[in-house]
Amino acid sequence: MSVFAAVRGIGTFPARTNPMPRSTAVPASASPWQPADRRAQQREVKRMAVLRTAAQLFNERGFHATSLDDIAERLNVSKPTLYYYIENKDQILLECVKMALDLMQSGIGEVRAAGGSAIDQLKACMRIYSGVVTQDFGMCVIRIGEDPLPDPLKKELRRLKAGIDGHFRRLIEEGVAEGALAPCDPKMAAFMLAGALSWIGRWYRPDGDLTPDQIADQGIELLLNGVLQRAPTKVTAP
Amino acid sequence: MSVFAAVRGIGTFPARTNPMPRSTAVPASASPWQPADRRAQQREVKRMAVLRTAAQLFNERGFHATSLDDIAERLNVSKPTLYYYIENKDQILLECVKMALDLMQSGIGEVRAAGGSAIDQLKACMRIYSGVVTQDFGMCVIRIGEDPLPDPLKKELRRLKAGIDGHFRRLIEEGVAEGALAPCDPKMAAFMLAGALSWIGRWYRPDGDLTPDQIADQGIELLLNGVLQRAPTKVTAP
Repeated sequence: MSVFAAVRGIGTFPARTNPMPRSTAVPASASPWQPADRRAQQREVKRMAVLRTAAQLFNERGFHATSLDDIAERLNVSKPTLYYYIENKDQILLECVKMALDLMQSGIGEVRAAGGSAIDQLKACMRIYSGVVTQDFGMCVIRIGEDPLPDPLKKELRRLKAGIDGHFRRLIEEGVAEGALAPCDPKMAAFMLAGALSWIGRWYRPDGDLTPDQIADQGIELLLNGVLQRAPTKVTAP
Repeated sequence: MSVFAAVRGIGTFPARTNPMPRSTAVPASASPWQPADRRAQQREVKRMAVLRTAAQLFNERGFHATSLDDIAERLNVSKPTLYYYIENKDQILLECVKMALDLMQSGIGEVRAAGGSAIDQLKACMRIYSGVVTQDFGMCVIRIGEDPLPDPLKKELRRLKAGIDGHFRRLIEEGVAEGALAPCDPKMAAFMLAGALSWIGRWYRPDGDLTPDQIADQGIELLLNGVLQRAPTKVTAP
């Protein structure tokens, strides 16, 4: 699956197939339990539904204002059922944030591996970043972050973030070396780009005027060209 | 006091004058208590020290990981002493965030009142924004935000933020009308500028390489002109 499909697909699950056969008559030789691999798959679908619902609630209400009871209620299950899929609220947040950062990291890795000019790679990476922060898990990275987590988990997530920042800095350095980007402090420029793109995860509303693609298009354009009106450029004969 | 001085001065306190006379001999007619206005002033200095220390701890460790005991310990006082100045942790956060947003709002108000071209006003407002988020209280707005607070307080702070966003949108609209800014969706552009500038409050370290002024200079330049290398502009004879 390409990373672009992955960015769009994060948090969407395979259509749930009917777990019960249409006929309730069980042939003598058949077991009423599904095969182990099918049960594992169903379990994973449910675990992802727990994480996704939790992420949505965290993003709507905040981490501390969301209880496991709230998550269970929205999923129409009891709280003990949740414990079959997750240990506690901290672990849910960790998994949500980690999933988004892993997706970003692997997307950027794919872009880097595919090669091309630094500016084209930078644009592609900005699009991945913008796409992830408009998804439930990515929004969690921006709206909640690692702050509520205990120190060792905080460190793990910060290491992932630093890796993503490193990719942006290197791409900016390469872009300057190639002459496509204006000379700048790559650290500062990477922070400004990541800041503007991260903020999308704060203000984006799925029911708002702009789609994630429109936001990415306009946002990247603003960051590349700035808000100033450009002076007319000199047209040279070919 | 100009807003620029205010932005720099936020959280700094008047040099503490010696509360005790040099001689311990109290003249017969003098009271060992200070006059009421002096006591009120001293109380305000101490209240601000509580808020500032709390903001620093929130920014370092997170809101939930900071206890009133931690704040008292750093100030070398007992927790009961704190209650003379503040009610609880929520109220501290509210006051820290509100102070930063009020300062931003009044700074932007001064810029608007002074008038001038939209682009110059926009630059001045971006500088105020960037300055506030590198201060303890402003960092609190970005790193902690209103999320831990109960709903009515959240709403109050969101109203203040919306006011600041509104100023940016109007300035961008005016800048486009004046021809200084490229045509854009002012809402989107305001979000991108505010996002990049807000993010400064996340990564800025007082002991880092760049001063708040250098960050403002470079950050505003990047947002105005974009990261792309500009094509050589046509030089027309005067």
